[in-house]
Amino acid sequence: MKTQKAIAWLALLVTSLYGAAQTRASVERYVADHQQEILGEFVSLLSIPNVASDKPNIRKNAEQLRQMLLRRGFAADILETDVNPLVYGELRVPGASRTILWYAHYDGQPFDPKLWKQDSAFKPIMRDGRMEDGAKEIPDFSSLKTYPPGARVYARSASDDKSPIIALLAAIDALRASGQQPKSNVRLILDGEEEASSHGLISSLPKYKDKYRAEMMLVLDGPVHSSGKPTVVFGGRGIATLELTVFGPKFALHSGHYGNWVPNPAMDLIQLIASMKDDNGRAVVEGFYDDVPPLTAEEKRILASVPDDPQELMQFFGIARTDKVGGSLQEALQYPSLNVRGLRSAYIGSEARTIIPESATASIDIRLVRETDPDRMIRRVIDHIRKQGFYVVDKDPDDATRAKYPRIIRVTSGSGGATFAGTKAYRTEMNHPAAVEITNVIQRTWNEMPIRIRTMGGTVPMAPFAETLGFPIISIPVVNFDNNQHSENENLRLENLWKAVVTFAAVLAM
Amino acid sequence: MKTQKAIAWLALLVTSLYGAAQTRASVERYVADHQQEILGEFVSLLSIPNVASDKPNIRKNAEQLRQMLLRRGFAADILETDVNPLVYGELRVPGASRTILWYAHYDGQPFDPKLWKQDSAFKPIMRDGRMEDGAKEIPDFSSLKTYPPGARVYARSASDDKSPIIALLAAIDALRASGQQPKSNVRLILDGEEEASSHGLISSLPKYKDKYRAEMMLVLDGPVHSSGKPTVVFGGRGIATLELTVFGPKFALHSGHYGNWVPNPAMDLIQLIASMKDDNGRAVVEGFYDDVPPLTAEEKRILASVPDDPQELMQFFGIARTDKVGGSLQEALQYPSLNVRGLRSAYIGSEARTIIPESATASIDIRLVRETDPDRMIRRVIDHIRKQGFYVVDKDPDDATRAKYPRIIRVTSGSGGATFAGTKAYRTEMNHPAAVEITNVIQRTWNEMPIRIRTMGGTVPMAPFAETLGFPIISIPVVNFDNNQHSENENLRLENLWKAVVTFAAVLAM
Repeated sequence: MKTQKAIAWLALLVTSLYGAAQTRASVERYVADHQQEILGEFVSLLSIPNVASDKPNIRKNAEQLRQMLLRRGFAADILETDVNPLVYGELRVPGASRTILWYAHYDGQPFDPKLWKQDSAFKPIMRDGRMEDGAKEIPDFSSLKTYPPGARVYARSASDDKSPIIALLAAIDALRASGQQPKSNVRLILDGEEEASSHGLISSLPKYKDKYRAEMMLVLDGPVHSSGKPTVVFGGRGIATLELTVFGPKFALHSGHYGNWVPNPAMDLIQLIASMKDDNGRAVVEGFYDDVPPLTAEEKRILASVPDDPQELMQFFGIARTDKVGGSLQEALQYPSLNVRGLRSAYIGSEARTIIPESATASIDIRLVRETDPDRMIRRVIDHIRKQGFYVVDKDPDDATRAKYPRIIRVTSGSGGATFAGTKAYRTEMNHPAAVEITNVIQRTWNEMPIRIRTMGGTVPMAPFAETLGFPIISIPVVNFDNNQHSENENLRLENLWKAVVTFAAVLAM
Repeated sequence: MKTQKAIAWLALLVTSLYGAAQTRASVERYVADHQQEILGEFVSLLSIPNVASDKPNIRKNAEQLRQMLLRRGFAADILETDVNPLVYGELRVPGASRTILWYAHYDGQPFDPKLWKQDSAFKPIMRDGRMEDGAKEIPDFSSLKTYPPGARVYARSASDDKSPIIALLAAIDALRASGQQPKSNVRLILDGEEEASSHGLISSLPKYKDKYRAEMMLVLDGPVHSSGKPTVVFGGRGIATLELTVFGPKFALHSGHYGNWVPNPAMDLIQLIASMKDDNGRAVVEGFYDDVPPLTAEEKRILASVPDDPQELMQFFGIARTDKVGGSLQEALQYPSLNVRGLRSAYIGSEARTIIPESATASIDIRLVRETDPDRMIRRVIDHIRKQGFYVVDKDPDDATRAKYPRIIRVTSGSGGATFAGTKAYRTEMNHPAAVEITNVIQRTWNEMPIRIRTMGGTVPMAPFAETLGFPIISIPVVNFDNNQHSENENLRLENLWKAVVTFAAVLAM
């Protein structure tokens, strides 16, 4: 019995190892033969401006993407939302026993054109390496059939997030060229305002949820680990934000005439926020970490297997100490954080005036993990503020309020500019069958264990999908770490694009 | 013997009471007959723009003032300094046994023209009361010979500080009209950049000190007490400033990716400043109050005699508590203060970005009293900063410094934009013979004890005069409290101008 099981398992292993190797080889061959064609479709897509607020061009992107899906035999639609349209495609595979929902976004971060070292962020150029290392532009690259090993394409959304879309479609083409089809039905949702909080996507979830049903959701966004190794991400932190304004005198006062007598709101705000954390960066707000169970030994082991180099990171950032919320960067990201992202009261530097300011404001973001609900975390912070003796208001205090309360603070909460309280975190446990399956297929394809990120620090608004549709969500990042994401001179290392085609083809074929 | 003394004392008292009453009556008569003339000279002086940086107009002011002094028989000169010129005048009185140095300034605060409710801050208008109470403009007021009781002149420097100059010269005219002369030699120094730190005046002290020698110095600046009663001020707080910048990562980082691991400089700054004061607004920096001897019972009594109404002030400012450095506002002003005048780190509100900022800055002013030296106080704060674990630098840290020190702060100190470490406080003890003499002559003139301010909260740079020339310094403020000093729509209540002529005449005749 034992022997039979072992033989069956070995047979399966050999088959899948062989299958993975075969898929990789044939896809790599396809890619080698079609680089110019893949790049041509990529450049064409990058040439359509895609800042979320640019409605006419957003719609041009959507239409071009729909055509790209139609050409591959998808049933493709534009799904309207309150804001920007989604592009939706479905590819049914005969005999498929399950469906995978793939996600990417086609909008890009806004930017300052003056900071780009090229004519336009929407006129892609190629360089023979990394610009910051002195790489030179390769002129007329569209006429080339192959490219230097370190070549990169520079354009807005080259990495974030148009290249995964190109890679996924090329992967389907590559499979078909070798006579294969995806093994699962493909559902693809392309978001038109991820960089502007995905409000349309999330708010349309009730309306379109039947289109999104699947056995798992794969998110194609973000860079691989800084080591460049294949990476799988099983969760993302959520975010809640708070803005705190402490009120002082009704108008700024001469600090000579009234200093020592009229309380200073900047000092009150400082004393308040100082009470929220200890010297090691740990929040001391009551209950802040209560919802997060301790990491298991196995979880700690996997977190420790991420090849972060803390000394190198510290040198790169120019810091000589770290906060001590977790034993490492990866552990730290498994806990909620409380971050002062901005402070403002009166003036500094040459603009400084010798006054007692009328108010002082701090903007705070709380990064969440799956166990920490945004509303509950905000409530805990507000409870803490009240315990420090503050009367909490939601608008400027009137005279009666000012006369009654010695310490008054306005607290508003939101997520960026949005009105909802926050974006929840999500996480698929790393021993979930889907997590194991994705990990294994990538391991087999690249002959090495991918770096497994339990929860990444940043936020993608995927939690409502997991809650509504009940499937596991896993991210497969493919672009280079040093892509200048969200910044000027965004770029994609072409090698990452070619490898992404292989990775996605392997997942499609699993 | 006792009886003889009492009789002599009574005789002196009667003489001086009679003298004061006689001077007041004759000066009031003179003023009543010459309001149009006095106002004419005032309006002419107010019509010359006087922002310290406006060099051509500053010189026009100086020349006009020199002419005004020459017309009264002063020996008058323009004294050149590194920056704006001083106007100096000397009036020798036959038989005078002493000299009094009078000080005022002819420059005014810069301003935003758009915020003035009149064509120009340098085109004086008259209103029949306080603008904020709905007072109306009195057209063509120059042709009037008398004015409504509550009338005010609106112009930059109407109160701060051209009216005291006009009042002093009118007082000399009034004395002479009744056949009197000042009893002491008059030396008059008119500062051309008091609102820009009086750097020229102070730095020229060694050069011109022989011109400034006197038995006492009288400063004509600032408003009377808010009660409107005659006021004498015996000291002013000094000021030292500090700017603290805490360094975080070399560039702002994504708060999701690194929050909980990379320390936040805004939080470090907050923890640091929080450690400097307690909940009652008292500094807990070691030695902060050590140099200040406790107030005597007599000093406390005089401070308590100032008719401040804390409830009214708190209501006016919209605050429900006060700091507890002293038992009252006047007591609080007898101690140094530590005030956060500005805070800045990254962004708030709609500009907020979810980052760990690269730095955080606080601008701090320390108000000083006579016993607290600026350099020593700054040293104490820096010692405190070091005790909190910070490495103190005076410029941006390089990589080696960043790698070595877990907490790095840049500390710069100065006074406003100036490079010197601070402006010292000064104070003439209230039982000094000169203090008693001035108090008495004002009491006799107005038949009531003036309000005695031991140390006012604000700063005038008079300490170097007291140190260099060894004389007592006393301020005799005359303008209305609600004059919108340093703000738009500055004004002078005319009644204050007429009374100032009487007060100054009484002092000239003492």
